[in-house]
Amino acid sequence: MKSTFGFVNEENMSMLTDLYELTMCASYFDHKKFEPATFDLFIRRLPPTRSYFLFAGLEQVLLFLERMRFTEEHIKYLKTQGFKDDFLDYLRNFRFSGDVWAIPEGTVVFPNEPLIRVTAPIIEAQLIETFALNTINLQTTIATKASRVVYAAGGRSVIEFGLRREHGTDAGMKVARASYIAGCNGTSNVLAGMVYGIPVFGTMAHSFVMFFSNEMESFRAFARTFPDRSTLLIDTFDNIKGAENAITVAKELEKNRFKLRGVRIDSGDLVSISQTVRKMLDENGFGYVQIFASGDLDEYRIEELLNKGAKIDAFGVGTRLGTSADRPYVDIIYKLCEKANEKGEFQPIMKLSEKKATLPGRKQVFRFKDGKGNFVKDVIALEGEEVGGEPLLVKVMENGKIVYNLPSLDEIRRKALENLAALPEKYRMLRGAAKYPVELSPKLKRLIRELREKLRKIEGAFSG
Amino acid sequence: MKSTFGFVNEENMSMLTDLYELTMCASYFDHKKFEPATFDLFIRRLPPTRSYFLFAGLEQVLLFLERMRFTEEHIKYLKTQGFKDDFLDYLRNFRFSGDVWAIPEGTVVFPNEPLIRVTAPIIEAQLIETFALNTINLQTTIATKASRVVYAAGGRSVIEFGLRREHGTDAGMKVARASYIAGCNGTSNVLAGMVYGIPVFGTMAHSFVMFFSNEMESFRAFARTFPDRSTLLIDTFDNIKGAENAITVAKELEKNRFKLRGVRIDSGDLVSISQTVRKMLDENGFGYVQIFASGDLDEYRIEELLNKGAKIDAFGVGTRLGTSADRPYVDIIYKLCEKANEKGEFQPIMKLSEKKATLPGRKQVFRFKDGKGNFVKDVIALEGEEVGGEPLLVKVMENGKIVYNLPSLDEIRRKALENLAALPEKYRMLRGAAKYPVELSPKLKRLIRELREKLRKIEGAFSG
Repeated sequence: MKSTFGFVNEENMSMLTDLYELTMCASYFDHKKFEPATFDLFIRRLPPTRSYFLFAGLEQVLLFLERMRFTEEHIKYLKTQGFKDDFLDYLRNFRFSGDVWAIPEGTVVFPNEPLIRVTAPIIEAQLIETFALNTINLQTTIATKASRVVYAAGGRSVIEFGLRREHGTDAGMKVARASYIAGCNGTSNVLAGMVYGIPVFGTMAHSFVMFFSNEMESFRAFARTFPDRSTLLIDTFDNIKGAENAITVAKELEKNRFKLRGVRIDSGDLVSISQTVRKMLDENGFGYVQIFASGDLDEYRIEELLNKGAKIDAFGVGTRLGTSADRPYVDIIYKLCEKANEKGEFQPIMKLSEKKATLPGRKQVFRFKDGKGNFVKDVIALEGEEVGGEPLLVKVMENGKIVYNLPSLDEIRRKALENLAALPEKYRMLRGAAKYPVELSPKLKRLIRELREKLRKIEGAFSG
Repeated sequence: MKSTFGFVNEENMSMLTDLYELTMCASYFDHKKFEPATFDLFIRRLPPTRSYFLFAGLEQVLLFLERMRFTEEHIKYLKTQGFKDDFLDYLRNFRFSGDVWAIPEGTVVFPNEPLIRVTAPIIEAQLIETFALNTINLQTTIATKASRVVYAAGGRSVIEFGLRREHGTDAGMKVARASYIAGCNGTSNVLAGMVYGIPVFGTMAHSFVMFFSNEMESFRAFARTFPDRSTLLIDTFDNIKGAENAITVAKELEKNRFKLRGVRIDSGDLVSISQTVRKMLDENGFGYVQIFASGDLDEYRIEELLNKGAKIDAFGVGTRLGTSADRPYVDIIYKLCEKANEKGEFQPIMKLSEKKATLPGRKQVFRFKDGKGNFVKDVIALEGEEVGGEPLLVKVMENGKIVYNLPSLDEIRRKALENLAALPEKYRMLRGAAKYPVELSPKLKRLIRELREKLRKIEGAFSG
């Protein structure tokens, strides 16, 4: 193998899959199993430090379903892995032809709720599993984390700053996207700005200050280049001296009718330093100069800083947001919930085991709201069952074609902010949040009972 | 913005950077600052749960340096962000022209050791920061984690299985690469197999078992498709009944001169189940059938299972390895350590602050080994200083061209396994490992003292 970046792109993405998807499909093909089946993509449980999820990543899944193809290069490689020619011929002509229902991105969701529901011939439905999980896991993990950080900041700006420690190039892009959806005001990632239209922000690094003969010289140089939007990093040597220098530059800028945008503090006791710097700025008539804080921040640290009276206008949040460091994944899975028999009749399927039980049948999620639009409870029901509430899953794909008006990123973000605002405080607080009620509908409960009974009989027959 | 995957590729990767790299560079350009400078890329400290790092990711950084370009699309976007035409013209013709020294991938490294040392005109040296950090952070984080998992498995196979919960598409690829370097035997990721030549492994999912009328039927179907290499998932209903069915299939395979490769257990008490299943297999003459275990595994869980006598031949390790869940990042930074004055003379630079001090000057790392080749200690020294030991940093790039024979992935893996074997047990154990000695050389210590003294005088002058 020659050296390579190993970037994933639209051409090779269909191969970004676990081998077992292909081995299972090869065996289905071998045994002429083409019956349709339905899979639910959902999150099994809440981690201890989360009380809801913010769903994100659907757009990329739908694009994948519409465009995934196997090329001759892929076929050639798969042949070396022992796949047979007839199955490889099938892959050559592979197109996803299924129907997909999904909850729109930016929706607050809970464990066991189907987020994406795929109905397709078994091989197609199986083959898309890994990419769908990979996409939804990352973006939902990050959107959820970011929504907590934004919540802690209580209306102050939050900029996603974590590109350097996010997990590779694609995470750099998707973290910026998911964070913006969750209410961050922008990102440091220039490519995310270009590709997704997300506002980009950036100040300066310590190296910039140190490259000049002294801090003052570096501040002046930067302010000359960006007179209308400089944020000066004041902690390279000493925050207070740095603030004095920034005030000098702010005065010089005012002489030219410009305004210093802000100062950034990246280390030290952010509470006392921000208070002192705020006072210094205000006393010199620079009430408009913002204080921007960064450095190992997350929702807990921001909450603590603000509780202690830190005077901070905006937060740059990096590694702990960009990796969701306290919980870098969600327990997301993709499970078979019904399959058609030879006559084409769908039969509900469930997995019984104690800790890993799944919900059978084709389902819909209904959300109940109070008079003010606040979320009261969700009910997971069988499709077509009348239980009241607002159905969350909408049809997004029919016969392999997107039949859904993909919302813009700003529309998704608006939905997310509305959803988060409608989630009552008690379910949203950072610590000790109440458990949001998610019920099973009467028909779904009855179906589960029946299937349990049936499986028990089968088990009895086994051991008898 | 229209809907998009947002994949990063060779053409747009130069824009995958923090905005501040570009704002700083614009200001350097504005002030005609083109003097060369040297930056060190290094990890600041060990997390509580790590005692060393396994360095990985260099290849992609070097390819980036050689190939990064700014296209008209990039220039157009940057113009909308307020960058001036003369700087944009500079970017149009941007080529990285610097010299780079680096420690080879697969080397065991420690905090404060320069892993990559970049000497280039300040704008070039600054502009590459974000991509380099992003690449090294991910691969070094994962290689380190994976090396611990492999260590815990004590010679048994470890397969990286985490694609579905790794952070996006690029992480899927780089985790497979870094895990293989660290000693994993393969990956579930088919594209990583195709692109990097890593061995790929896959069994079957619960959905496969459930799609058939019963478990036996599904096992037989799979074994008919892959008679020479089936691993059967036996826990969908009941591990013991599953093992009985697998034994039946193994007998049927033997009649056709095939051998069942293995059974996989994905839930339940892996200790007692693996013991029972091993006994069942052995008693039926299937000593050759391997037991493959998966399900929420990491180095601690594997150690515990083996300590308790689990009979497991191979481990499939997913989420916790693929996200390095207990610590999904390393404290990796990129810091200015010297700059040239107008006469072209390099001056060492250091950051003084208590917790974030950096090491000044152009440095080399020397490793000392005992007679058996085991690592004894490292010394960080100034370049050209004679301290003994083996220098770790080698020249990898000159005038922007790679001058280093990029090793194959298997060569990197071999180096990693040799390095890990040469790291004495006391520095390698999963818990309570001793601190590996990393010393500063006499000349480096003297330089630090001198710079401290000088900076104190400057501070004195400030406050006086």
